[in-house]
Amino acid sequence: MKFSLGCALGYDVKEPTPFLFNVELAKVATQTILTETLTLSPSLEAERWTMPETGNRYLRVVAPAGRFTLRYEADVDLNPVLESPELVTELAAGEIPLPTLVHLYPSRYCQSDRLQRLAQRTFGKERPGYSRVNAICNWIHDNVDYVGGASDELTSAIDTATERAGVCRDFSHLAISFCRALGIPARYASAYAWRLDPPDFHAVIEAYLRGPEGPGWYLFDPTRKSAANGLARIGIARDAAEVAFASPFGSVDFDKPDVWINAQDPSPPAAPTTMAIRCE
Amino acid sequence: MKFSLGCALGYDVKEPTPFLFNVELAKVATQTILTETLTLSPSLEAERWTMPETGNRYLRVVAPAGRFTLRYEADVDLNPVLESPELVTELAAGEIPLPTLVHLYPSRYCQSDRLQRLAQRTFGKERPGYSRVNAICNWIHDNVDYVGGASDELTSAIDTATERAGVCRDFSHLAISFCRALGIPARYASAYAWRLDPPDFHAVIEAYLRGPEGPGWYLFDPTRKSAANGLARIGIARDAAEVAFASPFGSVDFDKPDVWINAQDPSPPAAPTTMAIRCE
Amino acid sequence: MKFSLGCALGYDVKEPTPFLFNVELAKVATQTILTETLTLSPSLEAERWTMPETGNRYLRVVAPAGRFTLRYEADVDLNPVLESPELVTELAAGEIPLPTLVHLYPSRYCQSDRLQRLAQRTFGKERPGYSRVNAICNWIHDNVDYVGGASDELTSAIDTATERAGVCRDFSHLAISFCRALGIPARYASAYAWRLDPPDFHAVIEAYLRGPEGPGWYLFDPTRKSAANGLARIGIARDAAEVAFASPFGSVDFDKPDVWINAQDPSPPAAPTTMAIRCE
Amino acid sequence: MKFSLGCALGYDVKEPTPFLFNVELAKVATQTILTETLTLSPSLEAERWTMPETGNRYLRVVAPAGRFTLRYEADVDLNPVLESPELVTELAAGEIPLPTLVHLYPSRYCQSDRLQRLAQRTFGKERPGYSRVNAICNWIHDNVDYVGGASDELTSAIDTATERAGVCRDFSHLAISFCRALGIPARYASAYAWRLDPPDFHAVIEAYLRGPEGPGWYLFDPTRKSAANGLARIGIARDAAEVAFASPFGSVDFDKPDVWINAQDPSPPAAPTTMAIRCE
Repeated sequence: MKFSLGCALGYDVKEPTPFLFNVELAKVATQTILTETLTLSPSLEAERWTMPETGNRYLRVVAPAGRFTLRYEADVDLNPVLESPELVTELAAGEIPLPTLVHLYPSRYCQSDRLQRLAQRTFGKERPGYSRVNAICNWIHDNVDYVGGASDELTSAIDTATERAGVCRDFSHLAISFCRALGIPARYASAYAWRLDPPDFHAVIEAYLRGPEGPGWYLFDPTRKSAANGLARIGIARDAAEVAFASPFGSVDFDKPDVWINAQDPSPPAAPTTMAIRCE
Repeated sequence: MKFSLGCALGYDVKEPTPFLFNVELAKVATQTILTETLTLSPSLEAERWTMPETGNRYLRVVAPAGRFTLRYEADVDLNPVLESPELVTELAAGEIPLPTLVHLYPSRYCQSDRLQRLAQRTFGKERPGYSRVNAICNWIHDNVDYVGGASDELTSAIDTATERAGVCRDFSHLAISFCRALGIPARYASAYAWRLDPPDFHAVIEAYLRGPEGPGWYLFDPTRKSAANGLARIGIARDAAEVAFASPFGSVDFDKPDVWINAQDPSPPAAPTTMAIRCE
Repeated sequence: MKFSLGCALGYDVKEPTPFLFNVELAKVATQTILTETLTLSPSLEAERWTMPETGNRYLRVVAPAGRFTLRYEADVDLNPVLESPELVTELAAGEIPLPTLVHLYPSRYCQSDRLQRLAQRTFGKERPGYSRVNAICNWIHDNVDYVGGASDELTSAIDTATERAGVCRDFSHLAISFCRALGIPARYASAYAWRLDPPDFHAVIEAYLRGPEGPGWYLFDPTRKSAANGLARIGIARDAAEVAFASPFGSVDFDKPDVWINAQDPSPPAAPTTMAIRCE
Repeated sequence: MKFSLGCALGYDVKEPTPFLFNVELAKVATQTILTETLTLSPSLEAERWTMPETGNRYLRVVAPAGRFTLRYEADVDLNPVLESPELVTELAAGEIPLPTLVHLYPSRYCQSDRLQRLAQRTFGKERPGYSRVNAICNWIHDNVDYVGGASDELTSAIDTATERAGVCRDFSHLAISFCRALGIPARYASAYAWRLDPPDFHAVIEAYLRGPEGPGWYLFDPTRKSAANGLARIGIARDAAEVAFASPFGSVDFDKPDVWINAQDPSPPAAPTTMAIRCE
């Protein structure tokens, strides 16, 4: 399914400031970038790097003092695989590929090591596999209030488990923590999210499970706010620490980001929420 | 119902060290101290103070270098009032006596301010009154593992809500936090606890509710390990910080405390767990 | 020295809401209230209570729906005792009066139990007494940024020790924690603070030391923003949890509080910062 | 300089249990592995993976019920480059290679995002480069007590900054956090550490700086317990979460690990502590 998406970012820079951006679509198999343009104003020389393990694309510029804007536009064809949830199971610790084990470790905002008992007690008896991760997302949706401003960039899964309020970032960190605590590799994905209202950069999770075609990553949105077949992924990471859409190394003023994603077909269907979405 | 109880504490003191003790039974209306003896060896001059708001009895000595022991023995008649739970309701914020409001505040180990949403979401729809506090205790009993050594003297309600393991002190701190978060004044009580196995100093909670005879304090044991009509209270406080049974001001070696409580009747009944226990 | 002071608070109340206020001057020996008026609009019946241990005056009303205001005005004569700092020493643990020991315990926002080593390492070699508490306040002034908005009502001494930013409340919590960790009883005082700019409710600390006239409480302002002989105390407590100037039990809209304190003499001197200020 | 090193690990396994090990020397340019043997008993089929970004070597086996041991022995030639500290400077944010930026992010045990002000206030005026990282290590050595048992596997840099006690793991996490907070990429290294007494697995840090030969990683031991030219690195990572020497996925009993490292020359010199040690 084809989408047009992008973002426009604007800054008032006081003195020459390096910026790291991660707004371009990740290079992953299930999303085919049809066209894309990135426009910097003023036109600056940019350094680029694609992280081999994830396909994340990082871009660095040093912006001079004054007004600085970045505009990214892309057309993308998203082809996640829809599978029957009951066919998607878990891998034992001895079966998870060695390079994937890193996604079992606790990370800055996902302290799975402190949430072992809570995870076991709450989800230990759920049917392993897609069903269990889905139960985690349902539990978070039902037990945490989605409240803008209730959290900030220091908020972690422990805080959210305790204070029970947050936004997409916090919902994802808690879901990832529960998965890891249960032995399910899980990671964070920033995304352009179709049908998210109001439009913004979104955060979802990926869990490593075994489907009919073998092990792979499955997408879940614990906020239940986006259509899972309309998630165009930007950054894939241990947690939000690694995929900020913009990191200025210095003090700058910034505009509220403008973010959009529209389906190219007039009225395509959202994926049935009863299907498992495999993204890699 | 009559009980014989006491404790024996032993220390090896390296240099003259002040000790604050809180092991004698509190002076409260529903427990009548029939006899009691406190023996210090060596025999030391002791300073004493009874806290007016609680009836807690504090004792201070300065122990010289060498072996130092304290032995406390008492006979007590406990007369908690057994009431029908459905007659025990909550007070509105405008009705709680002003001196009691202090027991709504968060304290060191009871961060009720951070647990508002969790408390509201979990217990907000419970029937107010004895029933709701009982539901809190049941929830803690069902959702937290009783594990010796899983916590220490720095562990607080936030930790227990997150890590889901602890002992009587931790169970009580979490129960108190939930009560306060719901607007129910609650406090911590250390006690000699009949039928606790193995015998030890115990910790329970008191919640301020309105019974048939007016507002008062009701006892609950979130660990479900003691008989509620066999709780002889020692220290009543905001939380454990205020009622350590022994606080040496200096480094000392100590024996494992010996603690006991026995019913004087050959085989008296424990209070039915279906009754509300009013203690003040 | 005589001061005129007061505050004006305004609320838009949606439904009948109990309020607890603590804005009237505490009844303590070194501040003589010459005149005072408290005006509620609409005129409501108020319940009052003065806490015996502190002299704090609490006032409760149930405000009906609609506009509700409180105005407090007082003239006060402040007579703190100015003493020579080098004559103000510490009490050993065995000498502190038993009722004062409660101010050694950790409390919600003053986790002195977790700051033992930091306190010992940083202030362990300071000259005991006024000098050491002053060193604590200097250290906080020098090592923590005073930044409005850097903290909130959940911020505790641990957070401030780590993140090194806060306001008067946070500076006081950290100072209290360090004192307690060193065995010096310390408590929190909210106050009308002369020369505070901009005017607002202020927070300072009191430490229990031994002066020329015996043991007593000494005032310190770790923010260094007020004149210590112009602190008219409102609430004295373990920490901020216990002396909020206003606690509505329900959701209300409120105006920014208006707070003032003016010296009645045209240009009286601030106390020399080289003197110890004994307040009780 | 040549070393013989190794470890012997022993387990009592109750039921078939997967283990992940990271005890073999990392494949990095400055350490040449001359010989090595890894012996599993019983002899088990092992799966192996070397992480491309770090050279870490992971080994997984599924141990059957019963006694299970692993023994690793290696001879290694360590050739760190000794440089003059004053020639080792920092890189600006715009100069750090893009793949290295990941080592500026906060991680589970290194919450550099919460330690910005503390780092800036304490080390902001230090001379940038080797000198500043060295100042960080000196500060930690001087301000944190090395106390076995004062921390556990959940302890993070925030805890250590607050409680001021820990072991090599904690010292390293705090040093890494300070570096990252100051814009210096830093990572964790587990190692066989010559002259560490008693011998054990050790933890040190690497900071990314610019030396006479260009940018690279420099070794620092904040505990000051090892000889920096005798550090044979095993696992290089964001923090300890990623390089446990052994991770059993299940409950097992284990022996205290036996770890050793000896210089092959009879009495080689430790590197002068006045030199910068470049390891990559």
